[in-house]
Amino acid sequence: MYRHVKNLQFAAKPEKPDAVYAMKLQELIGGQFGELTVTMQYLFQGWNCRIPGKYKDMLLDIGTEEIGHVEMISTMIARLLEGAPNETTEKAAAVNPVLGAVLGGMNPQHAILAGGGATPFNSQGVPWNTGYIVASGNLLADFRSNAHAEAQGRLQTSRLYNMSDDPGVRAMLKFNLARDTWHQQQWLLGIEQLQEDGLADIVEDSNFENEDKIQDHTYWVFDETSTATEGRWAQGRTLVDDQEILVQNPAVPSDDIGLLPPPDPKLYATYDGSQGRGKPGTAAGGTAQGIANVVKKVTGTD
Amino acid sequence: MYRHVKNLQFAAKPEKPDAVYAMKLQELIGGQFGELTVTMQYLFQGWNCRIPGKYKDMLLDIGTEEIGHVEMISTMIARLLEGAPNETTEKAAAVNPVLGAVLGGMNPQHAILAGGGATPFNSQGVPWNTGYIVASGNLLADFRSNAHAEAQGRLQTSRLYNMSDDPGVRAMLKFNLARDTWHQQQWLLGIEQLQEDGLADIVEDSNFENEDKIQDHTYWVFDETSTATEGRWAQGRTLVDDQEILVQNPAVPSDDIGLLPPPDPKLYATYDGSQGRGKPGTAAGGTAQGIANVVKKVTGTD
Amino acid sequence: MYRHVKNLQFAAKPEKPDAVYAMKLQELIGGQFGELTVTMQYLFQGWNCRIPGKYKDMLLDIGTEEIGHVEMISTMIARLLEGAPNETTEKAAAVNPVLGAVLGGMNPQHAILAGGGATPFNSQGVPWNTGYIVASGNLLADFRSNAHAEAQGRLQTSRLYNMSDDPGVRAMLKFNLARDTWHQQQWLLGIEQLQEDGLADIVEDSNFENEDKIQDHTYWVFDETSTATEGRWAQGRTLVDDQEILVQNPAVPSDDIGLLPPPDPKLYATYDGSQGRGKPGTAAGGTAQGIANVVKKVTGTD
Amino acid sequence: MYRHVKNLQFAAKPEKPDAVYAMKLQELIGGQFGELTVTMQYLFQGWNCRIPGKYKDMLLDIGTEEIGHVEMISTMIARLLEGAPNETTEKAAAVNPVLGAVLGGMNPQHAILAGGGATPFNSQGVPWNTGYIVASGNLLADFRSNAHAEAQGRLQTSRLYNMSDDPGVRAMLKFNLARDTWHQQQWLLGIEQLQEDGLADIVEDSNFENEDKIQDHTYWVFDETSTATEGRWAQGRTLVDDQEILVQNPAVPSDDIGLLPPPDPKLYATYDGSQGRGKPGTAAGGTAQGIANVVKKVTGTD
Amino acid sequence: MYRHVKNLQFAAKPEKPDAVYAMKLQELIGGQFGELTVTMQYLFQGWNCRIPGKYKDMLLDIGTEEIGHVEMISTMIARLLEGAPNETTEKAAAVNPVLGAVLGGMNPQHAILAGGGATPFNSQGVPWNTGYIVASGNLLADFRSNAHAEAQGRLQTSRLYNMSDDPGVRAMLKFNLARDTWHQQQWLLGIEQLQEDGLADIVEDSNFENEDKIQDHTYWVFDETSTATEGRWAQGRTLVDDQEILVQNPAVPSDDIGLLPPPDPKLYATYDGSQGRGKPGTAAGGTAQGIANVVKKVTGTD
Amino acid sequence: MYRHVKNLQFAAKPEKPDAVYAMKLQELIGGQFGELTVTMQYLFQGWNCRIPGKYKDMLLDIGTEEIGHVEMISTMIARLLEGAPNETTEKAAAVNPVLGAVLGGMNPQHAILAGGGATPFNSQGVPWNTGYIVASGNLLADFRSNAHAEAQGRLQTSRLYNMSDDPGVRAMLKFNLARDTWHQQQWLLGIEQLQEDGLADIVEDSNFENEDKIQDHTYWVFDETSTATEGRWAQGRTLVDDQEILVQNPAVPSDDIGLLPPPDPKLYATYDGSQGRGKPGTAAGGTAQGIANVVKKVTGTD
Repeated sequence: MYRHVKNLQFAAKPEKPDAVYAMKLQELIGGQFGELTVTMQYLFQGWNCRIPGKYKDMLLDIGTEEIGHVEMISTMIARLLEGAPNETTEKAAAVNPVLGAVLGGMNPQHAILAGGGATPFNSQGVPWNTGYIVASGNLLADFRSNAHAEAQGRLQTSRLYNMSDDPGVRAMLKFNLARDTWHQQQWLLGIEQLQEDGLADIVEDSNFENEDKIQDHTYWVFDETSTATEGRWAQGRTLVDDQEILVQNPAVPSDDIGLLPPPDPKLYATYDGSQGRGKPGTAAGGTAQGIANVVKKVTGTD
Repeated sequence: MYRHVKNLQFAAKPEKPDAVYAMKLQELIGGQFGELTVTMQYLFQGWNCRIPGKYKDMLLDIGTEEIGHVEMISTMIARLLEGAPNETTEKAAAVNPVLGAVLGGMNPQHAILAGGGATPFNSQGVPWNTGYIVASGNLLADFRSNAHAEAQGRLQTSRLYNMSDDPGVRAMLKFNLARDTWHQQQWLLGIEQLQEDGLADIVEDSNFENEDKIQDHTYWVFDETSTATEGRWAQGRTLVDDQEILVQNPAVPSDDIGLLPPPDPKLYATYDGSQGRGKPGTAAGGTAQGIANVVKKVTGTD
Repeated sequence: MYRHVKNLQFAAKPEKPDAVYAMKLQELIGGQFGELTVTMQYLFQGWNCRIPGKYKDMLLDIGTEEIGHVEMISTMIARLLEGAPNETTEKAAAVNPVLGAVLGGMNPQHAILAGGGATPFNSQGVPWNTGYIVASGNLLADFRSNAHAEAQGRLQTSRLYNMSDDPGVRAMLKFNLARDTWHQQQWLLGIEQLQEDGLADIVEDSNFENEDKIQDHTYWVFDETSTATEGRWAQGRTLVDDQEILVQNPAVPSDDIGLLPPPDPKLYATYDGSQGRGKPGTAAGGTAQGIANVVKKVTGTD
Repeated sequence: MYRHVKNLQFAAKPEKPDAVYAMKLQELIGGQFGELTVTMQYLFQGWNCRIPGKYKDMLLDIGTEEIGHVEMISTMIARLLEGAPNETTEKAAAVNPVLGAVLGGMNPQHAILAGGGATPFNSQGVPWNTGYIVASGNLLADFRSNAHAEAQGRLQTSRLYNMSDDPGVRAMLKFNLARDTWHQQQWLLGIEQLQEDGLADIVEDSNFENEDKIQDHTYWVFDETSTATEGRWAQGRTLVDDQEILVQNPAVPSDDIGLLPPPDPKLYATYDGSQGRGKPGTAAGGTAQGIANVVKKVTGTD
Repeated sequence: MYRHVKNLQFAAKPEKPDAVYAMKLQELIGGQFGELTVTMQYLFQGWNCRIPGKYKDMLLDIGTEEIGHVEMISTMIARLLEGAPNETTEKAAAVNPVLGAVLGGMNPQHAILAGGGATPFNSQGVPWNTGYIVASGNLLADFRSNAHAEAQGRLQTSRLYNMSDDPGVRAMLKFNLARDTWHQQQWLLGIEQLQEDGLADIVEDSNFENEDKIQDHTYWVFDETSTATEGRWAQGRTLVDDQEILVQNPAVPSDDIGLLPPPDPKLYATYDGSQGRGKPGTAAGGTAQGIANVVKKVTGTD
Repeated sequence: MYRHVKNLQFAAKPEKPDAVYAMKLQELIGGQFGELTVTMQYLFQGWNCRIPGKYKDMLLDIGTEEIGHVEMISTMIARLLEGAPNETTEKAAAVNPVLGAVLGGMNPQHAILAGGGATPFNSQGVPWNTGYIVASGNLLADFRSNAHAEAQGRLQTSRLYNMSDDPGVRAMLKFNLARDTWHQQQWLLGIEQLQEDGLADIVEDSNFENEDKIQDHTYWVFDETSTATEGRWAQGRTLVDDQEILVQNPAVPSDDIGLLPPPDPKLYATYDGSQGRGKPGTAAGGTAQGIANVVKKVTGTD
């Protein structure tokens, strides 16, 4: 359950309005790496966490922090939109031609949809969606996802920091930059903790015993002039299993050339008969038959 | 520019068809962490890479490898769909009632849309989209994104491996598991290389000098009963800058309670006048005025 | 700012797992009217609210309540998924053919993506997006939107209630049904309060003085056999302005038949010249010219 | 079945072109509350309506009216785009620097995709989708949805009205404003009619007998400083069932702290064993077992 | 403007309900090539058509016909859903284990969202969106798009025809198959008419005089073992301009290896300095400068 | 499997940067008819092709060519963005007011997300998705789809060609225009080849024997004043089956007026009882019963 505290984590007070910058700042709300992403990603990971105690609590702590970040940036955007030129501009433009430019740069949805407030979209007006987030139940994989989201989010914040001189905007973004520096580390330290607790290795390696034992330490080259083999990823020892890295240059494929079986004629796939005659999918074909046989055996109806 | 070689990287030959499993395997094509994601993510990162040589070449090598993975899994799916029961099933169901179950588990789009082949969608039929990928130009941030994608992708492959007993399916997935183990390491080794080449620190830290120097090493607690402070992320030294981690328990907000300025009356936001009178956005307000003044000064038309 | 309390608002304890029902229950998380929708809709409305005090506080109270509803249902789904048949089922199916049916009805993403937890998607695996929500700044319009969301959400909850006999599931849904009954009333009472405070009329009527004064009380008939004029909406007095409702039967259009001007030839729209010669869009055309003239006048550079 | 009449419902004739305004007006075609939304929402509700006669006919009348609204606004947009500067602008910009501003404000897709006509997208170029609409079969819930759509749609129209001085644009929007005033009332009158016909109560209350009888009239407070209890929604009698409204301040949760059962080990969710040992999902677990037992009993194969 | 006629174009009466088939049939409403696609594509093309008379009228005739097709299939789906098992099924399943299978195959959204009616989604529950359609203003390009939509739509209808034995379903689909056969021809005949009227060539060839005169008749080979040159597309004369088709085997690229300029340092793209020093984007860089110079010249403010 | 060659197919070297044009050019990467669409459409068609030899090889040749087109245009965009004004612009704007206009016209995501490179989105920032493509297995239908994609893609390229005077941009687009002219022909020649090989007729006509033999050659008129019957599509002989085209004027519907059966009362669809009493969906209703009976017969458990 959640509770609300009226006070923002950090003040969101621009020195003066700037409707064009408000448009850009939307990226930090509804972009792929906006605050909605980290909010929902950490909350779902926390709710889905199977370990009572520090891991679950930490995920929910930070997820809860992030809801407040959406609130801060939304507030900032509404304040940046104060006095924006939302109405008829013909006469204003006669006195001030550059007004047209500002109107071009603004996002009209700030006026039309949100009445001067933030929208839940990115800087281009594209809605945020939950296809951006992940909560796999596997904390190593998820902490890597979280570290990546914070790295990308911080980079975007940093670029946006450079796009404004407003001291109030910059003060808030200094806070955000710091939290993103911190959160990146937090997830990397989380991986250390998982390893210390015996809950994870260096990489996600479930079913490790079943994987191909050559292909897990071989660099494949797909370009004749590639210089990629000069990198650390193509020489020295692997991080996992301490093997000498192999190079396959050039890449050597299998002998399967991907020909498909004859099609089901009732699906009207174009076909010249060269692979033999296709059969309509029925109880006699594919999966159906497999299970059908089983049923017959079990029920004895054959 | 790209070239095609008919042979698949690894054979995609199921021992027998399994239409229900074909539906599940779509996740590895069109899911958030399917092969389309890594293909497009690495290719765009490579095309966007500013360093001629090993980094750019490596990104394009692996991006090119991944196109072939989409090809392999698409081929596998088409073969798994052979003989699937796509047509009228009333009479078949009279002999074999379980057929209905299989039909329920299958994805009818495999027949209706693709004529027995793979679709470019995930296991639930949701189209893949480029909102899943990132190519920021910053290789540290992007390599973290790549490591995360490989970790999540491998975990999904591993779960799917457990969902089939088919030797042909499993042989191919062993290959995929191994590549994902390898690629996770490759991106981590890429980060090592960036650091060795002086091109990156531990975390994304552009504008580091401008960030808040307390909030970059402070853990905030948002739940009174949180035990999260027991973790490594709330004690010891930071990875960056070697500071002692601070704990703020409970979280202490600012004194900004998020009140907004009076609204533009022409936007019809509901308002009781308690913050003073709102003014219509015009050339006299916000951004417009700022730039307008500048124009007047420059052109001397006032 | 937000805080977390570990305890759920209401217990989310199913008596026994039911993976197929877990799939259906996803509709209440990530569907058009799932808890993510009301959470985000009320929070953005609250952050965007221009009136300090009871309205803003109420919006944020309920928005905060709804975050906890996402948490409750996510927890319920993870518990419903306990012991779900996620792995190879060939041998199991030999003993138990109906297992195949259950597997068909389950959502494989619960295993592949979420490791046995809830996903942030709807019952068909479609991601939730912020295109579902609205926060217009106009509280009358927004409270109507909120009443609609609660009505649709309650109806879906009620249908889902009938789809399970599990006492634990039903206990939680009784709570949800009640909250939705209550919240529907709360928004209707909110409209009463707005009207009492002089902040709203019966319908959204900004720019009322400018609208067409016949068309705001006329029912148009578009089907010769329509019996719609028997309804209250086609007879009696209007709610606004107390006018006698008019009926236009049949609908009578204007004399504008929608012909378009000649196309810009450089856009290669197919055209037979019958409307005269199209001119390429340049500084001499359309909007550009209007503003251009203004600039010339202002700067005197002509 | 539908028929077409060439004449528009109302003339869509701007006095002069305005490409930037054309971009904004797209919101009324393809936005969340654009004409495509009401068109498709009413048509699907009409087709899905179970009552022959006035309700079904009314839904289809208005749905049919709305198709014509899409037509009107599309025509208006194509006319507003006449002479827009779609081609090379280098030389033009040398004479007329403000041309660049107009080009910035325009939507290039009007030229690139639509050859100077309307697109089926919103003002930011985001495609319209059927996730915006609802047709639940329950007329009370649906009429509330319709009243909300008309309220939001009218508010957006009203804001757009203020953004143009063009007499032809304004004449058409006066018509649209009036229809939206009228349609809001029509749906509210529709609810009156449903109640008069004994087909609906005040709120959606199916399964009313099963809901929690305290939680349906209790306001929960989630912020210590909330003043929300001053509103009508926290005092007086409920609209349904005439109960005294209760206040729960602060919100008091259950004692369920959301811990999850041990995970299926084959899904590789991170887990420390503290909740006991997880079991792989098989025929012995969850739903599968329940149904399996039934099958054994029915078929007698045990 | 549109009018409604209650009668369907063709009866939509299944002999008996079939909830699983209803799910599949949704593809013809909300799929990429469902009736919503052709409806909206033809209507937007018609509204956007620049030629008064037979072309515009024909587009609007068929667009209007297609609205009625959505209506027919929606009605069919609602009837197929009659008596579907939407409620608790535990006891029913005890008597009838296969019920579980049907429930698995059904789409629960038919009950939860639509109360037993059609949804505006495809067979997998994915919403339809206007990104599927095109209305370019160029009738040759658009008629090719229309012919493609009818071909794909007919193929899907034909596959769905084979998936049902219901005489009522089949009767309606015979009608749909015929209309799709007819409409394919209609668009091909439309292209003949365009050519006869001098409004189009064989292919879209605007700016024909500016295109590369070798690359418009050269087949490129990208696979060493490709046998594609055996086809008509690699031998004989072109359709346009009557040229001998050339073959470039293997494909020969340019000497541009895609290296990028030094990055703007303020964007923190990873860079080793090897291309020289990047400069921050300012008024001195790129586009800005170009236009800036122009302004200075025009206004004389330098 | 694929290989990479560093050299682009054609040089992508603009004479000078132009950030606004870079925004527009994104349409050719991530738009509905951008290079990602043709790339993925042809590759999936190739992988799904059932005929070994020239058809499959041709599809994969061209799909492989198209990957290189995405690469070319991405490279062009990154070069067009060189020196774009991405940072604080207050002081620059004081000297150069038109800078604001350029900033308005630019897409800020080029800086924020991509660090000065291309994004995988369209000109409005909307992500590309696989819902744009088709691979049906039927080569006639798919070649028609491919011809349409090339026609629309060429038209967009041609419009974009006119929007730039840059010789380097134009040189590359001349190449693209030529390839699109060629590829349109290639797919039309592909249809000729299919017909010559006996693999296709003029239109998609599977199940031809089952379609309604009147409706496949009848033009329906839906507007009383329609002049559409003047066109070739309403007179003369059909392309298929050589029939005289019929005209149905006006359109004459069936006598099915679309009334629905009584609803399942447990779904709470609004209903007045006029169609008789609805029955809850159970094992006794609809599909379930049909299959249930079958099971009983087969297993003999009744």
